[in-house]
Amino acid sequence: VKPVDVDLNADLGESFGRWTLGDDAAMLAVITSANVACGFHAGDPSTLRSVCAQAAERGVVIGAQVGYADLVGFGRRFVDVAPQDLTNDVLYQIGGLEALARAAGARVSYVKPHGALYNAVVAAVARYDATLPVLGLPGSALLRLAAESGLRTVTEAFADRAYTPDGRLVSRREPGAVLHDAEEIADRSVRLAAAGEVVAVDGTVVKVTARSICVHGDTPGAVTIARAVRDALERAGVPVRSFAARG
Amino acid sequence: VKPVDVDLNADLGESFGRWTLGDDAAMLAVITSANVACGFHAGDPSTLRSVCAQAAERGVVIGAQVGYADLVGFGRRFVDVAPQDLTNDVLYQIGGLEALARAAGARVSYVKPHGALYNAVVAAVARYDATLPVLGLPGSALLRLAAESGLRTVTEAFADRAYTPDGRLVSRREPGAVLHDAEEIADRSVRLAAAGEVVAVDGTVVKVTARSICVHGDTPGAVTIARAVRDALERAGVPVRSFAARG
Amino acid sequence: VKPVDVDLNADLGESFGRWTLGDDAAMLAVITSANVACGFHAGDPSTLRSVCAQAAERGVVIGAQVGYADLVGFGRRFVDVAPQDLTNDVLYQIGGLEALARAAGARVSYVKPHGALYNAVVAAVARYDATLPVLGLPGSALLRLAAESGLRTVTEAFADRAYTPDGRLVSRREPGAVLHDAEEIADRSVRLAAAGEVVAVDGTVVKVTARSICVHGDTPGAVTIARAVRDALERAGVPVRSFAARG
Amino acid sequence: VKPVDVDLNADLGESFGRWTLGDDAAMLAVITSANVACGFHAGDPSTLRSVCAQAAERGVVIGAQVGYADLVGFGRRFVDVAPQDLTNDVLYQIGGLEALARAAGARVSYVKPHGALYNAVVAAVARYDATLPVLGLPGSALLRLAAESGLRTVTEAFADRAYTPDGRLVSRREPGAVLHDAEEIADRSVRLAAAGEVVAVDGTVVKVTARSICVHGDTPGAVTIARAVRDALERAGVPVRSFAARG
Repeated sequence: VKPVDVDLNADLGESFGRWTLGDDAAMLAVITSANVACGFHAGDPSTLRSVCAQAAERGVVIGAQVGYADLVGFGRRFVDVAPQDLTNDVLYQIGGLEALARAAGARVSYVKPHGALYNAVVAAVARYDATLPVLGLPGSALLRLAAESGLRTVTEAFADRAYTPDGRLVSRREPGAVLHDAEEIADRSVRLAAAGEVVAVDGTVVKVTARSICVHGDTPGAVTIARAVRDALERAGVPVRSFAARG
Repeated sequence: VKPVDVDLNADLGESFGRWTLGDDAAMLAVITSANVACGFHAGDPSTLRSVCAQAAERGVVIGAQVGYADLVGFGRRFVDVAPQDLTNDVLYQIGGLEALARAAGARVSYVKPHGALYNAVVAAVARYDATLPVLGLPGSALLRLAAESGLRTVTEAFADRAYTPDGRLVSRREPGAVLHDAEEIADRSVRLAAAGEVVAVDGTVVKVTARSICVHGDTPGAVTIARAVRDALERAGVPVRSFAARG
Repeated sequence: VKPVDVDLNADLGESFGRWTLGDDAAMLAVITSANVACGFHAGDPSTLRSVCAQAAERGVVIGAQVGYADLVGFGRRFVDVAPQDLTNDVLYQIGGLEALARAAGARVSYVKPHGALYNAVVAAVARYDATLPVLGLPGSALLRLAAESGLRTVTEAFADRAYTPDGRLVSRREPGAVLHDAEEIADRSVRLAAAGEVVAVDGTVVKVTARSICVHGDTPGAVTIARAVRDALERAGVPVRSFAARG
Repeated sequence: VKPVDVDLNADLGESFGRWTLGDDAAMLAVITSANVACGFHAGDPSTLRSVCAQAAERGVVIGAQVGYADLVGFGRRFVDVAPQDLTNDVLYQIGGLEALARAAGARVSYVKPHGALYNAVVAAVARYDATLPVLGLPGSALLRLAAESGLRTVTEAFADRAYTPDGRLVSRREPGAVLHDAEEIADRSVRLAAAGEVVAVDGTVVKVTARSICVHGDTPGAVTIARAVRDALERAGVPVRSFAARG
C-alpha cells in the first residue's frame, strides 16, 4: 500500500501567565499542525502570540482550539451554555487568535474544538470562514455536523490512546487508556498512517481513517514521544505534512 | 462658517451576562459610531454580537473599545501590564470583536482605547490593520503616538464635559466636571461642530477641533441627551456622519 | 388559625463592579433575611461588605448564597464540577463572605445554594459549621440531603411564582411562571404564611409549608412588591421575623 | 552566640486547575510555615484545601498569602485598586482560605502580602483578627504600618537573594539578584539565623534581623535547596520552628 500523507497535530499554547504547560518550542520542531488554545480554557494572549510566531517560523500550520470559558476547569467540564452564546464565544476566540496569528505573520487555518463544543464550533466556523477545515475523530458527531453544514472535515487518530474493537477511544477513566511507551506509540502511528488500522484492546485489528495523528504536548516525555512518532513515520516513507494550507 | 461633518460616538456593548448597562438599542438610533467594548473590561461575546448586528442594521460604524483585562474594575484602574503583553491583549480583543462583527455582517472600522492604553493600542493597530483610524482627544498622547506610527487619527470632543481654559477636560474628580442639562449639552455640541469652539469653566472661549462628538450611553438620561444633541446638530445644518467608512 | 412567624428573604449583593443589579438598600428595609452572593456567580468583595454592613444596621440576617464560578452565566448554567471541587468552591465562598460580614460587625447565619449545588453545599456546610441552617424548597433534594446529614433545614416558598397542582414551581420557561401584580403576590403571601397553602395554576389549593417567603430583588418593581408583601403580612397579623438568629 | 529559633517559610498553593507550580508536598516536609495563596493571584479552592490538609498533617503553620485579583499576571503587576476595595479583596481572601483550612482541620495563623498590598493587608488583618501576626521584611513599610496599627510583626530574610550594603534586597531585574547554589544558600541561612548577618553584594557584612527565612517553592531545585537550608540550620544547632502557634 502506498502511504498517503499524514499530519501530526498537538495541543499547544496551553500555558497561562506564570503557569507553563508543555514544551511548545520542542513540539513545534516535530508536529505539522498546532491546535493553539484561544484564551478561554487556556492560553493568555502573549503565550498565543509567541506560539503563533514560532509556528510561523517553523512552517507549522495553526489551528484554533476553542474551548469553554472555564480556566480553572481547563475547559474539560461540561458547561450548559446556551447554543447561541457558545457560538459567540467560539467566534470571539477564533477572532482573538487570528489577530495574534496575523501579528505573527501567520493565519488560523483550521479549527479543533476542545471538549464537546461541536454544535457551537460548526455554527461559528460556518459564519467566520466556511473554508476553514474542522479536525476531529472519524465518525464523530462533530465531523458529521460539520459535513452537514458544508464544511471541510479532516479525520484524526490518537497514537497514544487505546481503541475499542469498534474503533472508539477507550475512556480516560479506564486503566490502560493512555499508552506511554514511545516505541509502541511510534509503531502504532506507522500502521495508522500506512495501513489505516489500529490494534484494539482486545487484539482486534480495527480500520481507522486518519489524515492527522494527534500527539500530546503537555505530558512528561511528550516531546520524546512526538519525535519517535515522526521519525518512525519518516523511516516508513510516510510523508508528514499538514492537511491545511498555511493561511 | 460652513459646518463640516460631525460624528456622534458613544461607548456601547458594556453589558455583561446578567448585568445590563445602558440602552444600546436606543443609543444606536442616535449615534453614528459605536465604541464597542471587547470583553476584557466589559461586554460578553453575545452582547457584542448583538450590538454589532444592531449597529449594522442601523448603519452605525463599529469601533473596538479595547481595555484592561479587569472586569471588576471596569477597565478604569491602571494595571502595570508589560508593554508587549498589553499589545497582545489589545490584538486579541480587536480580533475577538472583529469575528463577532463579521458574523453580524459588519466590520471593525476603528479603534478607541479605554483608559490609558495608548502605546499598546498604537502598536496593536499598526500590526493588525494600519488603515484603521484611531479616535482620541485632540493634542493627546494617543493621537500623537498614532500619527508618529503612520496611523490615521480622528479627533473627538465631549459635549457633556467641562473644559479647562487650555482645552483639556476637567477631571472627573472635580465638581462640575460632567454636565447634565440636555439643552446646554446640545448647544455646546452645535458650537463645537459648527465653530470648533467650547466655553471653558472660566468663561474663556477655547478652540477645540473635533471630527466626532462623544456622548455617554451608560448614564440616566443618556438617550435623551444623545437625541437632543443630534437634533440640535441637524437643525443647525451640521451633517451628522461617521468619520469612518463601514467595513 | 394562629399565624406562625414568617421570614422574608431575597437575593442581594448581586452587583459586580460597575454593574448594579437591584436596589439592595431598599430591599433591606423590607426583608428579614438576605441571601448574599459570594463572588463566584455575582458580587465583588466591596459590594458584599456594603450589603453586610447595611444588613447589620437594619437587623437583617445574612445568608451565604453560594454559586458556580461562572460570572458571565450568573451561576445559572450547570457546570459539571467534580463533587470535591465544588465542596471546596462552596467552602471558599462561605469563608470569603464571612470575613466581610465580620468586618461589617455581622456573621453568616445560614446558607442558600444558587442553582443546583445541593450536594456540595451540604458537604461544605457540614464541614464549615454544622449549626448553620440550610434554606430551600419543602420536599427538595437539597433539604432532604441536608436533613440526612444532620443539618437544620428551613423551608421557603415563592410568593411571585406559579405552583403546579403537586406543589412544585412552574418552570421559568413556561408562560405565567412569574407573577407581577403586587396585590396578588401580597395576597398569596398572606395565605402561604397564615394557612400554609397556595392556589396552583389549575385552581387547586395546595398545601405548602414555608417558614420563609422569597421575594425578588433584581426585577423592576422588586421593592414595591416586597413592600406590599410585608405590609400585607403585618396587616394580617403575621409576625415577620427571620428564622435565623443573627450571628 | 546562642542561636534563637528560626522559621522556614515558602509560598505554596500556587497551582491553578490543570497548571501545577512547585512541589508542595516535598516543600512541606522541609518548611515550618506555608504562605498559602488565596485564589486571587494563584490557587484554586481544591489546591488550597489540599495544601492546608497536608500542612496540618505535617504540623506546618498556615499563613494567608493574599494578592491582587490578577491570575494572568500572577499578582505581580501593580493594579491601582481603591484602598477600600483592596481591603475588602484581602478580607475575602483570608476568609476563603480560612474556611478551607478549617475543613482540613487547621487554621490561618498569619498573613503575608504578595506584592505591594501593604495598606490593604494591614487594614484587613486589623478588622479580621488583630492577633494574626504579619510577616515581612525588617524595616519594611508593611511591618511599620502593621506595628502602627497594633499588629504583631514578624521579620523574614531571603537566603537565596542578594542584599545591598544597606540591607535591602537587590532588585530581581539586576543580574545576580537570585542565588542558585544550594550550599551557599545554606551557609547564608545559618549565618542569618545564628549571627543575624548577611554578606552584601559588595562584601560588606550587614546586620539583618529575621525570625523567619523564606525559601522558594516554585523554582527548579527548590526542594533540594530548601532541604539543604534546613539540614544546615539543624547541624548548626538552630531550632527550626514556626513563629506562629498553629490555629
